[in-house]
Amino acid sequence: MMKITNIVEETKSISSNIKNAYIDFSKMTISVVAVCSNVIKNGKPLIGYGFNSNGRYGQGHLIRERFAPRLLEAHTKEILNDEGTNFDPIKMWNVMMKNEKPGGHGERSVAVGTIDMAIWDLVSKIEDKPLFQMLAERYGNGKPNRKVFVYAAGGYYWPNQGLNSLTDEIKKYLDLGYTVVKKKIGGASLSEDCKRIEAVLKILGPEDQLAVDANGRFDLKTAVEYGKALSNYNLFWYEEPGDPLDFELHKELSKHYIPPLATGENLFSVHDARNLIRYAGMRKDKDWLQFDCALSYGLVEYLKIIEMLRENQWDVSRCIPHGGHQMSLAIAAGLGLGGNESYPDLFQPYGGFPDGVEVEKSFVTLPEITGIGFEGKSDLFSIMKQLVD
Amino acid sequence: MMKITNIVEETKSISSNIKNAYIDFSKMTISVVAVCSNVIKNGKPLIGYGFNSNGRYGQGHLIRERFAPRLLEAHTKEILNDEGTNFDPIKMWNVMMKNEKPGGHGERSVAVGTIDMAIWDLVSKIEDKPLFQMLAERYGNGKPNRKVFVYAAGGYYWPNQGLNSLTDEIKKYLDLGYTVVKKKIGGASLSEDCKRIEAVLKILGPEDQLAVDANGRFDLKTAVEYGKALSNYNLFWYEEPGDPLDFELHKELSKHYIPPLATGENLFSVHDARNLIRYAGMRKDKDWLQFDCALSYGLVEYLKIIEMLRENQWDVSRCIPHGGHQMSLAIAAGLGLGGNESYPDLFQPYGGFPDGVEVEKSFVTLPEITGIGFEGKSDLFSIMKQLVD
Repeated sequence: MMKITNIVEETKSISSNIKNAYIDFSKMTISVVAVCSNVIKNGKPLIGYGFNSNGRYGQGHLIRERFAPRLLEAHTKEILNDEGTNFDPIKMWNVMMKNEKPGGHGERSVAVGTIDMAIWDLVSKIEDKPLFQMLAERYGNGKPNRKVFVYAAGGYYWPNQGLNSLTDEIKKYLDLGYTVVKKKIGGASLSEDCKRIEAVLKILGPEDQLAVDANGRFDLKTAVEYGKALSNYNLFWYEEPGDPLDFELHKELSKHYIPPLATGENLFSVHDARNLIRYAGMRKDKDWLQFDCALSYGLVEYLKIIEMLRENQWDVSRCIPHGGHQMSLAIAAGLGLGGNESYPDLFQPYGGFPDGVEVEKSFVTLPEITGIGFEGKSDLFSIMKQLVD
Repeated sequence: MMKITNIVEETKSISSNIKNAYIDFSKMTISVVAVCSNVIKNGKPLIGYGFNSNGRYGQGHLIRERFAPRLLEAHTKEILNDEGTNFDPIKMWNVMMKNEKPGGHGERSVAVGTIDMAIWDLVSKIEDKPLFQMLAERYGNGKPNRKVFVYAAGGYYWPNQGLNSLTDEIKKYLDLGYTVVKKKIGGASLSEDCKRIEAVLKILGPEDQLAVDANGRFDLKTAVEYGKALSNYNLFWYEEPGDPLDFELHKELSKHYIPPLATGENLFSVHDARNLIRYAGMRKDKDWLQFDCALSYGLVEYLKIIEMLRENQWDVSRCIPHGGHQMSLAIAAGLGLGGNESYPDLFQPYGGFPDGVEVEKSFVTLPEITGIGFEGKSDLFSIMKQLVD
């Protein structure tokens, strides 16, 4: 009988000396997880892998105390599909969330999101398909679009940075093939941030664009002041101007700031995402939604978010997730999201693309790798493999 | 120099065979914390104690990995008041929340709330005052009201219960001196729940009242159906009818259900609480707010919630916190909340009152004990003491 034989977690450092407007990353960690099965392919048991994206710390203890035990203690019929031919990610999600109260969507949403990623990796390996293919068949129009928009996120603040090292960083992204790059704002004064922005704009080509990210730092007054200054720059987007739950701030700002806004990376449930759509004055024709499945209960919850968006006449192409991981790349390719974040310089080896994938005019084409594609990224997979070796 | 010498956490089981409409408590745990100082009184170093209330599990790992280390590594001036005469709970809170991103208010809100409770216990012990007295002086009108309304929460579902054991349970609460008792709904069919309610109503005296609690279980249709049936019963309140973040459900229900509603125990930040006030159609003259500091970043965040309520012309007497702990009793007495939950039968020895405190017509009078009052409850304090013995 098909079963989960073990769930292994290790908390890994992704420490760096960078800062955004809200936090530094000196003690940042993530969880890497392996969900091991007794399904044998090519003489070896199939294993699914997952990790959470940066910014909310590793969740090893929640995984070990609550979520992995529930899966390992579940009866087989609770976690297999009705035919008994594969694991059922939705049933497994329900098992993980048993005896969890509603509300309070943080931390545990990361723990569950990390395991959920590994489950989808495993399930698509059992189907012997790339995850994007399986998703397109199960939930999409059957045809994945392997060409996915990606933008380069960077431009953090770091000690003794200076404008030159900032523009050197951005140049590197342009040289890699990105035409959309992102930098942080709100970690300096408005006038200094404008200087930083103008320095970057000077090195952009005519088809390149800059996005900026305040990481939820501003009150309404500051958000509007920045908005006035930013209106001059033809930005790709102005991201997370205020607290992620202050929907009134966002709504009010959108009356003053006409170009695209983006937010959602710190909303970790369909309930919070729905409140954003209900209350924040988000504009269907130009604003961007950045919910990140790895931080918010995984793809099972993300499917609920997509359904909620459709009910509200939002197109999923307005979604460009936070996090820069291959899971969101697969979802983007399989279900038609608008693209994915990418950190060419940061949080390695977790982010990024399979080896050999090149960025061309800010698009990547996903190779045909079974599962999410981790086996195609050698530096990442060598870490994942250590979990079970 | 005054300093924190150690922070000790132990995760304790509060397992029981009870169920509400959403979860069972078979594996429920809480964290108990001791914050140890080098301040000597009566020959011994002063120690503050805290714990989180039931329902959201212990948070030992988050305390050990993130929040306790930040406090222990802080410079003295970062955590002392400007005069250097005591620790400053607000500064300590800011230290704990350093490098935490905005949004995602769950789990860590419990970890911080637990430590925050111990900090306030310690700070009021250093001032040699009951916490309620210190709070009234710092943030209130100077005069605590030691007489606090309490209601008996129980009426959970358990195996082979029957109406008689339910009414026996409720009778016990009435005999203890409670005139307001609460039972769960939504764990059975509407007709069965009505039978349970009617059985309880039959044993209530003319001045007694029943509250009911759906623990966030219902969709709008079910919430309204229950509301229609419940309208007949002159209930004290109808609690958490739908998902705690579905403010539209709550707003719509309040058009159909005229008597008092109550909610808020699963909103864990001032941002979430503000969204409830902004969007949920809560009625200032009769609805109840149940935010629980032990689950939501502690009293430092609760003070922000009180300020937010005042800005929105809500009286703090509309607050009756979830959780049944002495911390909320002290806040109620010091700052004029409307009362506090109490679990006469459950989650012992953590909930309840100092030894010898009697309930009279659903009020208790808090004794003059330095700190929160844990030293006055011998069964609880014997557990707390073990942390540092």
